[in-house]
Amino acid sequence: MSVFLPLLEYKVSVPLDVTAPWNVSLSQPQYQLVFYSLVVAGLALFAQFVKTWVSAGEVSSRYRPALYASMCICGVAFLSYVFLALKFDSGYQLSGGQYVPTAESVNSYLPRYMDWSVTVPLLMVEALAVSTLTGGRARQTRLVAMSAAFLMIFTGYLGAGVIGNGTSSSAMLLWGIISTVFFALLYVVLLGVLRASHEGMSPVAYLGYRNAVFLLLLVWVWYPIAYGIHNWTSGGTATTIIQVGFCAADIAAKAGFGAMIHKVAKVRTADDMN
Amino acid sequence: MSVFLPLLEYKVSVPLDVTAPWNVSLSQPQYQLVFYSLVVAGLALFAQFVKTWVSAGEVSSRYRPALYASMCICGVAFLSYVFLALKFDSGYQLSGGQYVPTAESVNSYLPRYMDWSVTVPLLMVEALAVSTLTGGRARQTRLVAMSAAFLMIFTGYLGAGVIGNGTSSSAMLLWGIISTVFFALLYVVLLGVLRASHEGMSPVAYLGYRNAVFLLLLVWVWYPIAYGIHNWTSGGTATTIIQVGFCAADIAAKAGFGAMIHKVAKVRTADDMN
Amino acid sequence: MSVFLPLLEYKVSVPLDVTAPWNVSLSQPQYQLVFYSLVVAGLALFAQFVKTWVSAGEVSSRYRPALYASMCICGVAFLSYVFLALKFDSGYQLSGGQYVPTAESVNSYLPRYMDWSVTVPLLMVEALAVSTLTGGRARQTRLVAMSAAFLMIFTGYLGAGVIGNGTSSSAMLLWGIISTVFFALLYVVLLGVLRASHEGMSPVAYLGYRNAVFLLLLVWVWYPIAYGIHNWTSGGTATTIIQVGFCAADIAAKAGFGAMIHKVAKVRTADDMN
Amino acid sequence: MSVFLPLLEYKVSVPLDVTAPWNVSLSQPQYQLVFYSLVVAGLALFAQFVKTWVSAGEVSSRYRPALYASMCICGVAFLSYVFLALKFDSGYQLSGGQYVPTAESVNSYLPRYMDWSVTVPLLMVEALAVSTLTGGRARQTRLVAMSAAFLMIFTGYLGAGVIGNGTSSSAMLLWGIISTVFFALLYVVLLGVLRASHEGMSPVAYLGYRNAVFLLLLVWVWYPIAYGIHNWTSGGTATTIIQVGFCAADIAAKAGFGAMIHKVAKVRTADDMN
Amino acid sequence: MSVFLPLLEYKVSVPLDVTAPWNVSLSQPQYQLVFYSLVVAGLALFAQFVKTWVSAGEVSSRYRPALYASMCICGVAFLSYVFLALKFDSGYQLSGGQYVPTAESVNSYLPRYMDWSVTVPLLMVEALAVSTLTGGRARQTRLVAMSAAFLMIFTGYLGAGVIGNGTSSSAMLLWGIISTVFFALLYVVLLGVLRASHEGMSPVAYLGYRNAVFLLLLVWVWYPIAYGIHNWTSGGTATTIIQVGFCAADIAAKAGFGAMIHKVAKVRTADDMN
Ligand SMILES: CC1=C(/C=C/C(C)=C/C=C/C(C)=C/C=O)C(C)(C)CCC1
Ligand SMILES: CC1=C(/C=C/C(C)=C/C=C/C(C)=C/C=O)C(C)(C)CCC1
Ligand SMILES: CC1=C(/C=C/C(C)=C/C=C/C(C)=C/C=O)C(C)(C)CCC1
Ligand SMILES: CC1=C(/C=C/C(C)=C/C=C/C(C)=C/C=O)C(C)(C)CCC1
Ligand SMILES: CC1=C(/C=C/C(C)=C/C=C/C(C)=C/C=O)C(C)(C)CCC1
Ligand code: NA
Ligand code: NA
Ligand code: NA
Ligand code: NA
Ligand code: NA
Ligand code: NA
Ligand code: NA
Ligand code: NA
Ligand code: NA
Ligand code: NA
Repeated sequence: MSVFLPLLEYKVSVPLDVTAPWNVSLSQPQYQLVFYSLVVAGLALFAQFVKTWVSAGEVSSRYRPALYASMCICGVAFLSYVFLALKFDSGYQLSGGQYVPTAESVNSYLPRYMDWSVTVPLLMVEALAVSTLTGGRARQTRLVAMSAAFLMIFTGYLGAGVIGNGTSSSAMLLWGIISTVFFALLYVVLLGVLRASHEGMSPVAYLGYRNAVFLLLLVWVWYPIAYGIHNWTSGGTATTIIQVGFCAADIAAKAGFGAMIHKVAKVRTADDMN
Repeated sequence: MSVFLPLLEYKVSVPLDVTAPWNVSLSQPQYQLVFYSLVVAGLALFAQFVKTWVSAGEVSSRYRPALYASMCICGVAFLSYVFLALKFDSGYQLSGGQYVPTAESVNSYLPRYMDWSVTVPLLMVEALAVSTLTGGRARQTRLVAMSAAFLMIFTGYLGAGVIGNGTSSSAMLLWGIISTVFFALLYVVLLGVLRASHEGMSPVAYLGYRNAVFLLLLVWVWYPIAYGIHNWTSGGTATTIIQVGFCAADIAAKAGFGAMIHKVAKVRTADDMN
Repeated sequence: MSVFLPLLEYKVSVPLDVTAPWNVSLSQPQYQLVFYSLVVAGLALFAQFVKTWVSAGEVSSRYRPALYASMCICGVAFLSYVFLALKFDSGYQLSGGQYVPTAESVNSYLPRYMDWSVTVPLLMVEALAVSTLTGGRARQTRLVAMSAAFLMIFTGYLGAGVIGNGTSSSAMLLWGIISTVFFALLYVVLLGVLRASHEGMSPVAYLGYRNAVFLLLLVWVWYPIAYGIHNWTSGGTATTIIQVGFCAADIAAKAGFGAMIHKVAKVRTADDMN
Repeated sequence: MSVFLPLLEYKVSVPLDVTAPWNVSLSQPQYQLVFYSLVVAGLALFAQFVKTWVSAGEVSSRYRPALYASMCICGVAFLSYVFLALKFDSGYQLSGGQYVPTAESVNSYLPRYMDWSVTVPLLMVEALAVSTLTGGRARQTRLVAMSAAFLMIFTGYLGAGVIGNGTSSSAMLLWGIISTVFFALLYVVLLGVLRASHEGMSPVAYLGYRNAVFLLLLVWVWYPIAYGIHNWTSGGTATTIIQVGFCAADIAAKAGFGAMIHKVAKVRTADDMN
Repeated sequence: MSVFLPLLEYKVSVPLDVTAPWNVSLSQPQYQLVFYSLVVAGLALFAQFVKTWVSAGEVSSRYRPALYASMCICGVAFLSYVFLALKFDSGYQLSGGQYVPTAESVNSYLPRYMDWSVTVPLLMVEALAVSTLTGGRARQTRLVAMSAAFLMIFTGYLGAGVIGNGTSSSAMLLWGIISTVFFALLYVVLLGVLRASHEGMSPVAYLGYRNAVFLLLLVWVWYPIAYGIHNWTSGGTATTIIQVGFCAADIAAKAGFGAMIHKVAKVRTADDMN
């Protein structure tokens, strides 16, 4: 914990060259579109949360941890979106036809990293719980994947919101690169798990599993891209694209991925009975 | 996502010719009637949400996805109505015997589209889950119906609240027409599903199913009409009619339709056992 | 919906002769007593809501709709009382030893009608679900009773809070009389159901059922009386009596009636097994 | 209801001689200690609420009403403590090293009586549900105990917060004495039930039952003592002692008593199976 | 209760020599890091709360009290973190690039002790419920452990937030030492329980149990260290380290320990069946 403390204290000597996405004014259409995305994502995640809660009993106890993880992911993200939407509502003030950010607007953006810090490790639990890995290998892979997931998000957060307060281009670059190392590691791990699961699953189960993991890995590409946009440009359009994109990606990676894994778990439950 | 970005930026060159329903003053009776409708709809949806939650076990696992969808629909709409009602309460100020809208009043209206973006696709899940469609055809029909439902709402939202900020008559017309294309598609799909289900269901089940779908399709007519009223006229009476109408239509299309599909699912459960 | 629109627009030409109960100052003891009643009723309804939720499994699936209705009634009323109590807390200001109403005080009174619009029709579901009526007759009676219940409340609301903003004595009289027609109809329906159920129930079940319905019909008398007090007099004492009376009546008609019907359902469940 | 109306109106002619506990300033340590107690009690009751909810299935349906009552008691009290704690937080203002009460501070104290009005009658249900009383005798005893419990609290509330607004020593004395009559009656009833249950229970069950009832009756002694302190003295120390004492007593009488009765219900469930 | 009353009243005669952690300004990175930790811990505890709720049925009724305790611990801590995070959000004001504390900032820190007062005794229940202790010895050990846990926290709270208002170094020292006595006692008790459980458990179960208890005892070391930092130094860095450390420790001691005990309970359930 104390290794980055010097970093917290160091005086930013490079010129502040990044305008944070939460510090730009939005036009009325942009504001409406972002608010729309935040609320729709929140409601979709609420629906998936409740649905997973009541339907977890549909799969055998062996795969239920996947559903529990999915339920927690959607519940946590729902809470996070409630907060984001309320802060987006109260964090901008209409003035001269523009929505001008206030001191609260930061909380319509950065709390995403707090949600991800919990949900991305849980996504790893969910993805692994329906794989064919068992025993020590499953435990070890899970530990590596959860740690890498957390570190990916946490180091990204240091660049996006902590070091230089999200306005230092060099800090964003440095921590973005570190984060990307863990990002790459996760791809390696998940593709390895997928490969290892080919043998032990029925073709139908494997197909569903492969599609789910591919969707996840595809959607993930958006997150570092949005981070790059944060670092390299700014303005109402950029903020709108980032925010709407995050909402769409979160729906796909949480509710969509959750529905696909649910199906895999059901297929494997049926397979195990024969 | 990026295809409509130019649209977000374009300068509105036509004269602003629409007064949005949330920007007109309401008389005291009008205000009381709208507030009444919002709260009653919210409470009715809450009741149906809770009722569906606890009684989902009444139908066999085959039709349970219909009840899960209904439960999610009512839960999501309940949350939406809580927000609408609170914003309607705080978004108008009594002054000289009139309720005068403030900057917050928009959130007693536009969030409806956010609710619908989640709930109308889920209504498609609900309607299809008790049909006789199975396998690939069911999946494909569901995908088409959910996509069309989402696009119908989203394009309508662009016209009603985003492009020109809900005050551009030409934008409302353009996006209203695009939305109506998806609207028509949904009628075609749902009536097709109904026809296809005639054979495989018992007469009692089919009758209930037909009534439910007919109710849905009938109630849906209100939404584009209200959109037209938004575009073509304005004033306290218009806003009252639109808002009260939406509340009544939402109760019918969510709680009412949900109760009817619940019954169909129960009948089919019993039929399957014989 | 549009039939009463002219009514919404018409200029009130008679002198405003009624002071609404939410527009009078309360002494400190009066204020404390009303607040006490609102919170106690809310907590009692919460307790009954939770209790019914967890114990619905005690009766056979045939009578469970009665418990679901009761659960929804108490849940809806609980939410309503939370709102009433918060608005009663914030809607009066202590000034010179008196609690003086503000613009928010209306929401410590009128939302009762919104709650009733949902809960009184559900009370009809609850009362009928343990009767001996079945099939088409049950459905038809339920439809009549639910419609009459809703119209009774809605027309009463028009008089108490909409037409003339709850301050027109003639409007209150007119709509009060219309409401009373539905009121009378409900007595006829419920007593008819009671009579029809005499034969098909065991004596113990019937006794419980009769007591429950009698309690309900007795308690209901309070509501038009309170409406009359609203119309014919005003002052802190009148407001206190109305509010405390509504709280007591709501506890009896929702939690008390619910507990009695629960018992009837249990007895009938046991009777059906022999 | 109308019997005490003259009392509500009567002009307080005796000198106001009591300073209500919520109207005195608190030192910082006193404030911290009271806030601590309110939050700890709220959290403990929340824990017991949730625990009882999920574990009610552990006892046979015969004793389950005791657990339902306990669950409701803890849930109601949790809500009440949330309100008390929020009002204690916002109802005092730090000024010159002292926490000075505002108009809101009364709601960090008096709502206790609203909680008790629901929970003490439910405590009677809980205590009687595991006794050996059955049939008419059980019903009658329950009715007497619940009525006496409610009247004990309600008359106490009249003295503490309504008549003379909690500042009239003579009113506190009068209503305190009336309340104490019901208090004494409850001791008689509960000890009678205990005696009557000696025969029909196994020794282990009886021992647990006796301990639970004794704990309850012991803890109850605190409430009239605190009422006396309210009447006879005032100051930061008195308010601190009263508030902390109420929190401790509520934890014991609700969560502690609930845990003990839960155990009795488990023992009796096991006994009944042999 | 009354033994420490003189202490509440005594005039602090020693110079006030401690600056409380909630009374120092934070730099923007420090503020972001603490807020991040509070929200992440809250969300993680929410996830574990929900997960334990739905999966408690996985273990036999013998070990289920451990899961109930864990569920309550995580639920209580979640509520506590919601409060901490909201108060941290509203309790600091950005001014000149620094987050300056206001009167509300104390509630982003001290409520931790209120949470712990409930959750640390429940951790003892959780730890003991999967041990091999039974009957009287189990009850007695539990009583001692719960009492010592409560007294450890309560006496620590007296030093940290009550006596001298968290600014008296000598009070912190005195009460810290008293608290440490109970702390030591808990180590003795838990290690004793561990030793006593060696015999009666399968090696796999024991290994898991030992690891869980060791993790707990290791993590606990952080709490008195943070208390020492509070007493011996101050500043933005100190506050950041304390707060982030508490969040990490709470996640480990509640969610992490809970997951480990859950596994022990599952292993023991399986062992008992053979
Ligand atoms: C590589 C990289 C990043 C990756 C983020 C990812 C991959 C986030 C995934 C979030 C999900 C899936 C959330 C929904 O559950 C950061 C942190 C932006 C920082 C820049 C580098
Ligand atoms: C055709 C059309 C529309 C249709 C909306 C519909 C059909 C909404 C249905 C909502 C429901 C059923 C909600 C309840 O669950 C819009 C978007 C107003 C825009 C104008 C054209
Ligand atoms: C006849 C009549 C009325 C009757 C109201 C009733 C009977 C309300 C019952 C409410 C209940 C039972 C609520 C609890 O669930 C009104 C509307 C006051 C208007 C005046 C005439
Ligand atoms: C005798 C007496 C009183 C007794 C109060 C009691 C006995 C309250 C018990 C409350 C409990 C047990 C709450 C927790 O569930 C009052 C009303 C203070 C008024 C003065 C006389
Ligand atoms: C010894 C000691 C302390 C110990 C605190 C502990 C051990 C807290 C544990 C908290 C947990 C485990 C919370 C999560 O559930 C205090 C009170 C700081 C005061 C100083 C001395
Ligand atoms: Na806003
Ligand atoms: Na930027
Ligand atoms: Na208002
Ligand atoms: Na218009
Ligand atoms: Na007030
Ligand atoms: Na009047
Ligand atoms: Na405060
Ligand atoms: Na006093
Ligand atoms: Na802030
Ligand atoms: Na310090």
